[in-house]
Amino acid sequence: MNDSNLRPGEVAVELPPRTDAAIYFIGVIHTPWKTRRDCPKRGSAEGPLCTITIDARWQQALAGIANHKRVQVLYWMHQARRDLVLQTPFERPTMGTFALRSPVRPNPIASSMVDLVGVAGNTLQVRGLDCLDGTPLIDLKPEHGADE
Amino acid sequence: MNDSNLRPGEVAVELPPRTDAAIYFIGVIHTPWKTRRDCPKRGSAEGPLCTITIDARWQQALAGIANHKRVQVLYWMHQARRDLVLQTPFERPTMGTFALRSPVRPNPIASSMVDLVGVAGNTLQVRGLDCLDGTPLIDLKPEHGADE
Repeated sequence: MNDSNLRPGEVAVELPPRTDAAIYFIGVIHTPWKTRRDCPKRGSAEGPLCTITIDARWQQALAGIANHKRVQVLYWMHQARRDLVLQTPFERPTMGTFALRSPVRPNPIASSMVDLVGVAGNTLQVRGLDCLDGTPLIDLKPEHGADE
Repeated sequence: MNDSNLRPGEVAVELPPRTDAAIYFIGVIHTPWKTRRDCPKRGSAEGPLCTITIDARWQQALAGIANHKRVQVLYWMHQARRDLVLQTPFERPTMGTFALRSPVRPNPIASSMVDLVGVAGNTLQVRGLDCLDGTPLIDLKPEHGADE
């Protein structure tokens, strides 16, 4: 495959002819970062306050979430390509996609554990995200163990 | 909404008219559990060995994963309904979907952290899963912090 956007060592595959399941964007994440270059490599509990807004349709599903200090956020990394099996991160060796947490992966779903600072109506304030402003939200879950 | 499958306190909403993104199933998870009733409530490092098989297309993406002891597995809970905003788990109070880790949610994506026991070809042996045999795989990532 001749792809001028590949770095040395990177390998792209042909994507499958069909997708297998579909997701709903259920809200949107607001952060201070407007470009991928601005985003921190990893979210931090000392990082800036970010806002998650849930679509009205799903607002009732927030009932009880305020009792949790830590929440897992799943979101869709909508700017990432999906066809790389080997990647060469900046100044690091080439590695398989499943050995990296890079946004570039067959299904660009990110998972971050954040500190829940507050909930009001359909809006959550959190710390610990590292994604672009405007990133689509796909799920919120209490931290593992919290309801078990 | 009149739905005879709802438990007391549960609320279903109308699903959105459109989906927003599509996912590829990239492999399949094999476990000892053939029905949802058989599945443990939560996976354990002392649980049985489970097998994850990656589709040939993505096999190269496993390069380097064997260096990780803990791997995050994302999978699709294909038997779960998607329209409940309030749920009443067995012998527990009614709660918002986002305050539960129940399979029933707008996007039935599960996230489990597992112990990686071995990798051979396109197959991983792991401990710590709790899902149905035949569950579709959607992503593998090294545990947070491992590559950062």
